[in-house]
Amino acid sequence: ARTGEPEVVYAAGKTPAQTVTAVTALLDGGVRPVLVSRADPAHTTAVVAAHPDAVVHDDAGMLVLAPLPPRDDAADGRIVVVTAGTSDLGVAGECVVTLEALGERPTLLADVGVAGLHRVLEVRDVLAAAEVVVVVAGMEAALGPVVAGLVSAPVVAVPTSVGYGAAQDGMTALHGLLSACTPGIAVVNVDNGLGAALLARRIVRATDRRTAGG
Amino acid sequence: ARTGEPEVVYAAGKTPAQTVTAVTALLDGGVRPVLVSRADPAHTTAVVAAHPDAVVHDDAGMLVLAPLPPRDDAADGRIVVVTAGTSDLGVAGECVVTLEALGERPTLLADVGVAGLHRVLEVRDVLAAAEVVVVVAGMEAALGPVVAGLVSAPVVAVPTSVGYGAAQDGMTALHGLLSACTPGIAVVNVDNGLGAALLARRIVRATDRRTAGG
Amino acid sequence: ARTGEPEVVYAAGKTPAQTVTAVTALLDGGVRPVLVSRADPAHTTAVVAAHPDAVVHDDAGMLVLAPLPPRDDAADGRIVVVTAGTSDLGVAGECVVTLEALGERPTLLADVGVAGLHRVLEVRDVLAAAEVVVVVAGMEAALGPVVAGLVSAPVVAVPTSVGYGAAQDGMTALHGLLSACTPGIAVVNVDNGLGAALLARRIVRATDRRTAGG
Amino acid sequence: ARTGEPEVVYAAGKTPAQTVTAVTALLDGGVRPVLVSRADPAHTTAVVAAHPDAVVHDDAGMLVLAPLPPRDDAADGRIVVVTAGTSDLGVAGECVVTLEALGERPTLLADVGVAGLHRVLEVRDVLAAAEVVVVVAGMEAALGPVVAGLVSAPVVAVPTSVGYGAAQDGMTALHGLLSACTPGIAVVNVDNGLGAALLARRIVRATDRRTAGG
Amino acid sequence: ARTGEPEVVYAAGKTPAQTVTAVTALLDGGVRPVLVSRADPAHTTAVVAAHPDAVVHDDAGMLVLAPLPPRDDAADGRIVVVTAGTSDLGVAGECVVTLEALGERPTLLADVGVAGLHRVLEVRDVLAAAEVVVVVAGMEAALGPVVAGLVSAPVVAVPTSVGYGAAQDGMTALHGLLSACTPGIAVVNVDNGLGAALLARRIVRATDRRTAGG
Amino acid sequence: ARTGEPEVVYAAGKTPAQTVTAVTALLDGGVRPVLVSRADPAHTTAVVAAHPDAVVHDDAGMLVLAPLPPRDDAADGRIVVVTAGTSDLGVAGECVVTLEALGERPTLLADVGVAGLHRVLEVRDVLAAAEVVVVVAGMEAALGPVVAGLVSAPVVAVPTSVGYGAAQDGMTALHGLLSACTPGIAVVNVDNGLGAALLARRIVRATDRRTAGG
Amino acid sequence: ARTGEPEVVYAAGKTPAQTVTAVTALLDGGVRPVLVSRADPAHTTAVVAAHPDAVVHDDAGMLVLAPLPPRDDAADGRIVVVTAGTSDLGVAGECVVTLEALGERPTLLADVGVAGLHRVLEVRDVLAAAEVVVVVAGMEAALGPVVAGLVSAPVVAVPTSVGYGAAQDGMTALHGLLSACTPGIAVVNVDNGLGAALLARRIVRATDRRTAGG
Amino acid sequence: ARTGEPEVVYAAGKTPAQTVTAVTALLDGGVRPVLVSRADPAHTTAVVAAHPDAVVHDDAGMLVLAPLPPRDDAADGRIVVVTAGTSDLGVAGECVVTLEALGERPTLLADVGVAGLHRVLEVRDVLAAAEVVVVVAGMEAALGPVVAGLVSAPVVAVPTSVGYGAAQDGMTALHGLLSACTPGIAVVNVDNGLGAALLARRIVRATDRRTAGG
Ligand SMILES: Nc1ncnc2c1ncn2[C@@H]1O[C@H](COP(=O)(O)O)[C@@H](O)[C@H]1O
Ligand SMILES: Nc1ncnc2c1ncn2[C@@H]1O[C@H](COP(=O)(O)O)[C@@H](O)[C@H]1O
Ligand SMILES: Nc1ncnc2c1ncn2[C@@H]1O[C@H](COP(=O)(O)O)[C@@H](O)[C@H]1O
Ligand SMILES: Nc1ncnc2c1ncn2[C@@H]1O[C@H](COP(=O)(O)O)[C@@H](O)[C@H]1O
Ligand SMILES: [Mg+2]
Ligand SMILES: [Mg+2]
Ligand SMILES: [Mg+2]
Ligand SMILES: [Mg+2]
Ligand SMILES: [Mg+2]
Ligand SMILES: [Mg+2]
Ligand SMILES: [Mg+2]
Ligand SMILES: [Mg+2]
Repeated sequence: ARTGEPEVVYAAGKTPAQTVTAVTALLDGGVRPVLVSRADPAHTTAVVAAHPDAVVHDDAGMLVLAPLPPRDDAADGRIVVVTAGTSDLGVAGECVVTLEALGERPTLLADVGVAGLHRVLEVRDVLAAAEVVVVVAGMEAALGPVVAGLVSAPVVAVPTSVGYGAAQDGMTALHGLLSACTPGIAVVNVDNGLGAALLARRIVRATDRRTAGG
Repeated sequence: ARTGEPEVVYAAGKTPAQTVTAVTALLDGGVRPVLVSRADPAHTTAVVAAHPDAVVHDDAGMLVLAPLPPRDDAADGRIVVVTAGTSDLGVAGECVVTLEALGERPTLLADVGVAGLHRVLEVRDVLAAAEVVVVVAGMEAALGPVVAGLVSAPVVAVPTSVGYGAAQDGMTALHGLLSACTPGIAVVNVDNGLGAALLARRIVRATDRRTAGG
Repeated sequence: ARTGEPEVVYAAGKTPAQTVTAVTALLDGGVRPVLVSRADPAHTTAVVAAHPDAVVHDDAGMLVLAPLPPRDDAADGRIVVVTAGTSDLGVAGECVVTLEALGERPTLLADVGVAGLHRVLEVRDVLAAAEVVVVVAGMEAALGPVVAGLVSAPVVAVPTSVGYGAAQDGMTALHGLLSACTPGIAVVNVDNGLGAALLARRIVRATDRRTAGG
Repeated sequence: ARTGEPEVVYAAGKTPAQTVTAVTALLDGGVRPVLVSRADPAHTTAVVAAHPDAVVHDDAGMLVLAPLPPRDDAADGRIVVVTAGTSDLGVAGECVVTLEALGERPTLLADVGVAGLHRVLEVRDVLAAAEVVVVVAGMEAALGPVVAGLVSAPVVAVPTSVGYGAAQDGMTALHGLLSACTPGIAVVNVDNGLGAALLARRIVRATDRRTAGG
Repeated sequence: ARTGEPEVVYAAGKTPAQTVTAVTALLDGGVRPVLVSRADPAHTTAVVAAHPDAVVHDDAGMLVLAPLPPRDDAADGRIVVVTAGTSDLGVAGECVVTLEALGERPTLLADVGVAGLHRVLEVRDVLAAAEVVVVVAGMEAALGPVVAGLVSAPVVAVPTSVGYGAAQDGMTALHGLLSACTPGIAVVNVDNGLGAALLARRIVRATDRRTAGG
Repeated sequence: ARTGEPEVVYAAGKTPAQTVTAVTALLDGGVRPVLVSRADPAHTTAVVAAHPDAVVHDDAGMLVLAPLPPRDDAADGRIVVVTAGTSDLGVAGECVVTLEALGERPTLLADVGVAGLHRVLEVRDVLAAAEVVVVVAGMEAALGPVVAGLVSAPVVAVPTSVGYGAAQDGMTALHGLLSACTPGIAVVNVDNGLGAALLARRIVRATDRRTAGG
Repeated sequence: ARTGEPEVVYAAGKTPAQTVTAVTALLDGGVRPVLVSRADPAHTTAVVAAHPDAVVHDDAGMLVLAPLPPRDDAADGRIVVVTAGTSDLGVAGECVVTLEALGERPTLLADVGVAGLHRVLEVRDVLAAAEVVVVVAGMEAALGPVVAGLVSAPVVAVPTSVGYGAAQDGMTALHGLLSACTPGIAVVNVDNGLGAALLARRIVRATDRRTAGG
Repeated sequence: ARTGEPEVVYAAGKTPAQTVTAVTALLDGGVRPVLVSRADPAHTTAVVAAHPDAVVHDDAGMLVLAPLPPRDDAADGRIVVVTAGTSDLGVAGECVVTLEALGERPTLLADVGVAGLHRVLEVRDVLAAAEVVVVVAGMEAALGPVVAGLVSAPVVAVPTSVGYGAAQDGMTALHGLLSACTPGIAVVNVDNGLGAALLARRIVRATDRRTAGG
């Protein structure tokens, strides 16, 4: 955490007991906040038993312990998270929960796919007002370049593994976002809602620092 | 040509002499029209020397011999070909030239990429009036699902090899189009403007036949 | 549904409860028909409990609610669906059920693989009379180019994930269909019977519109 | 050559001088026959200068030195080589030239693609009479499973790199042939006409040995 | 079965009931023999309940009904099946059981990997005497080219999915066998013991026919 | 340019004449600045002939016309561009030239690979003071995660196609950067120095806007 | 075991009974030591029941029977095993257990990822003193080239399958390690802790032999 | 060079002038030896003009300046380099030249492919006496596991890009070597003769250090 990142215990591939041990050690060491990601029900039960004040976010597969309070300077809507489909909500949740645990107040816009372009245009003003937009989209992920063409802020794009066949578990969305002709897209790994949150926060925090120093 | 397709000599990988021989044999056999695709300048020079009435389409890499006259029932705009970028014009040209040699009168709309969504919306009515829309797009090919969401006609999508790195010579565009959540997209091979033309013609010809029979 | 498509709830990755909620919301909103695809037994039980008039198609993994009545102008056999093997029947079922819910009357021909070419030739007249042929085939999917060489109508080809090893979960069939030298093949995603149905319907509907207007 | 194979100098990646050196060494060592494959014009010129009796096969990229005489027991038509397109003739030539240098008398049938199924059916009897059929096909290579369904002899299939985009330099044809549901197909590497010849010869030679011993 | 192949019911992806139905229909139609491949315990129980005379081969995942009697002309050792490791025995079993059901008498040599080259050399004479050798090997499959260099008969090579990581579920073994510099290797799909058997039988049957005719 | 991006003419795949035409049209339309990327000597000669005031950056393959003046608020070092090797300098140049044409004053640190970790540590303070760091690295691109662990600003990572074999033309660097456990990395396409510049500028411009508004 | 390797029974894909049989046969044959790798709880229970003196290493998925005693010449720290994350400990365990069963005394350093470079630098002296360093790392595996730049001993690098999306089950780590610009890295297969141990042992044993002979 | 490695200028992608500049700077800085790899004739001419004492190795694409004298303790044959085919000699040359420039005295054995197993067995004693064996092999690279099964020393395996089609530019050889069941193989990148040399030297130098210290 030397660069100011929160500690996140990646539960996938850990036993519930190992997860509890890692969480407890971090809290005992004074780390704040502590997050658990990719938690299944067994991880959740075990962590809550040991730390009853853990806040559970089932759909996002996350638990939050000792979150930071909402920041005063974290105005609503400076970070906007938008998803292409309802199936992308789990990944978007990983992003939103992480941001909130760090004191941000992100706005979530769900199910704004390009198949119905009017829905994208309806939220155009909200997107244009953001300091950073996180786009969460699977399949062909066309929402990424469409949004990046509508705003002048940096767009953090999270490809998701939603889809089948030629979608190749999210690799097609990933490569499509990287190939997009619209400039201004920062791509993170498939399903990496957590990474998108931490990148978005680095971006707005840079602004916070200069503003504070100005 | 038993299914009504034109004869097309694929010049790539043939010598100029082999190309001329193939063209001459088809014309001598009474075939009409005869097309040459993927022709480089040497192919073109050789074919024109042997068949001075060959019409040359340099940008499309095509030659047309003995084209069909424009059809009476082929109203302008029933086939619309739209490209995402100017770099896609060569592939679109392969499509347009093929359609015209078969008597169709396609409408071409160039450089309508999703990075400037207003341009897509400006041509929305032309797209909506078509019986089939051919979308030619490389990189992430987001134009395909965007157009398919705006029209109710079938969309023939041609991914192109425009792009680099993660674009993987058009394979990312190809897989993205196949993964798109917008329904109604018929995908053909990378850079296959010819195949898109022949598929679009099968579609409108089906209509022609029923109308004629009604 | 702005382009006239039915609403389809993709159950894979949704809980039974989420699936029911989505279906109910669509029906309450007056949408007609509503389809559920990729439903497993738990999805099916939950939807039928909430909507006892849902028609269940187990082999196709689909449920149909509030289907459209069969159309008068949807003559039997204008859409023909043909499968290469019995293992492709689930995907073909997704296609047929979708078409029927939209009022079409498709003809299904099963197990017509190229390993026994006589079987393809036996149904040649049925294929030739169609306005659109949907070919459902896995492994090397050679049935696609063979059928496209026998008919002059557009062929919608659905590669399936049937096979193992070099079949690469349907990607080999997909790439083979896209590479076929026979013109007139419209390719959709692996196992995408639903997408094939919606594309086939766009094709015949274009005909319907012109006939109606003529 | 301990297993009875001819010596073949693979010229690709060798200089003309290195190629001549290798050929001369083999001939000096009494090896018979000596073949050069993948020869370009510079290789050919150099080898012919050193060995004027070398027989040049330009289209196949081969040279033959000290060929075996035609075998008495190598009846015409016991090995049939069939190609899907005219672009596959170079690879087929590599196969035919190799077989002839070994004393076989293969029959070549060119341009028998499945897009025109009648052409396959026209040569059905020739195929059925063979002891081994070599199928040379690129793009989706559907000719392989079609032929294997028509004959009871082993089919040696050579995928070629003819095609573009999804054809992936022959890898799609290769994987399609390996995935074919028709049994009896022996697959060799992309463009490996030479390997197909040596495999076909092992097959008929096994027969020769037993017949001789019987 | 027009080309003389046995009927094989591929149980993977079928329910036990569907498998029984398929088997019964074939037997009722007079087909002989009938094989079931890729059967799990549930398939096996159901088939045996319906057809108590089915012979079960658990390790090979196969059932045999109405096998052909051992052929008089099928001398032991004319078909030799050799595996690189004990983990390859399931695939080899699929090959051996298929051959025996067709009346062949194959010889099986197990666990002859190149890591212990002396073991390959110990069986060299058995290999050299065969009319066709089937090599079953996973991981890097180096046994294939080693055996093909020791014998003059055709070698049918079956790559297996044994291995992990860079073995890529058998694709590395597959591509390695196709790239081998040793000539005379006929490659079939990953884990395709059945296909290897049918190809080997086509090879020896060609011999049988000529011998019979001689 | 509705989102404030410069116009960039991508010369690769365009003729010199087409490139000049595009540049002239943009300048005539009042666009400022106009950039040409991926220019080879022929492109450069043609553009300079038509627009003698074009500034040529040979190593970066770029030309700049009508650049913006250096911004007052663009302090040196708020954007730092760092390369792993000297072979990455062309891509880094594309980034630096683009930023300078837009009025930024980036700092370039070259040849700071992880093979000599002391060199990374030597520039640690320069990196830590930046508002955004652009890392340009090929091969395994380990410099990306190492830098992201040393700073709290967002890191824009540009994988390059430097390397061979397993480097797979930059795809390994790309996938490695996306998989890095260090948070805060924004990935762009292989060799996309231009895209990195435009993303970095969106990031600092967001800060500029808030600072201006504060 | 002709080259001095231990016998290792690879339990994955074997039944518990098959595993016991293999172990017993080796012990009965006098082999020493016998290892079981990739054992799940069922394998472990069965082997311990048959051989109560088997030492179980659950986290490493290994069992050890009849280990060699610690070697006198195997000084602590001449083999150092270092992991990037806690999730890599299972693979590192496979390496350490194997080395210890062979009498080595490896040193294990865990969770030394490059995201916190200070942790790598803290163990720098331990690394520099080793005769061989084994690096176990997943995701982008940047620890490999960083360590190889800090030491002059050979580095055996084990990519792990830790990660998701672009990590591609360890293939990205594998290809990154092979592409690293730092020299001196010996790469083994993904998750192949066993192979790393046997390679490291060959390296130090070479030294042992020369020292003994000196 | 902090870890004792030589400086190597990688000429591919550098102009001749850039290459000379790099070489001169290193020599002026007192570095010894300086190597140039992947040099084409233009690089070679330029470097020799500037440094007439440069030793040119055309087939290996290398130049050597200021080599180390042969080491006293570098006994002939302690490093053996063996190639599968003559086409692998360029890569083997890169390895041998590098070793010699560092004072080693490697033994080179050429054209020892597994297609003729007797040739491998003939050199068995030379291989068994080495402290490290470098195997250079393309296509399916079966020589690697065969050699590793014959010796107890570590085997450094260099896959080469020799081959076509399924050989996939060396990736099949690479993945095959990594998947080999024979233990003791250290894999480096495709065509990376230089890396193999530096790894082999780290291995023998570890021995040298202990021997010296003993
Ligand atoms: N969902 C996630 N996606 C990506 N990285 C994660 C995720 N959750 C935790 N991490 C990172 O994984 C590392 C924890 O790995 P470990 O030491 O194995 O628990 C830390 O660097 C976390 O920041
Ligand atoms: N540009 C093209 N893309 C795809 N197929 C083509 C193209 N040009 C010609 N063809 C087809 O390629 C075949 C000609 O192959 P060939 O016999 O080798 O000349 C015919 O089936 C043509 O319809
Ligand atoms: N089996 C299917 N294959 C492809 N797309 C589907 C399928 N079923 C539903 N869809 C589409 O997936 C979208 C529904 O996604 P969601 O909002 O996540 O339920 C709609 O656009 C449907 O048309
Ligand atoms: N975890 C492992 N990773 C790689 N190879 C292994 C592993 N465990 C055992 N082996 C090797 O696999 C072979 C045993 O295969 P099998 O004969 O199928 O039991 C032997 O060569 C072992 O050295
Ligand atoms: Mg939706
Ligand atoms: Mg444009
Ligand atoms: Mg069937
Ligand atoms: Mg043809
Ligand atoms: Mg074994
Ligand atoms: Mg450097
Ligand atoms: Mg950690
Ligand atoms: Mg050789």
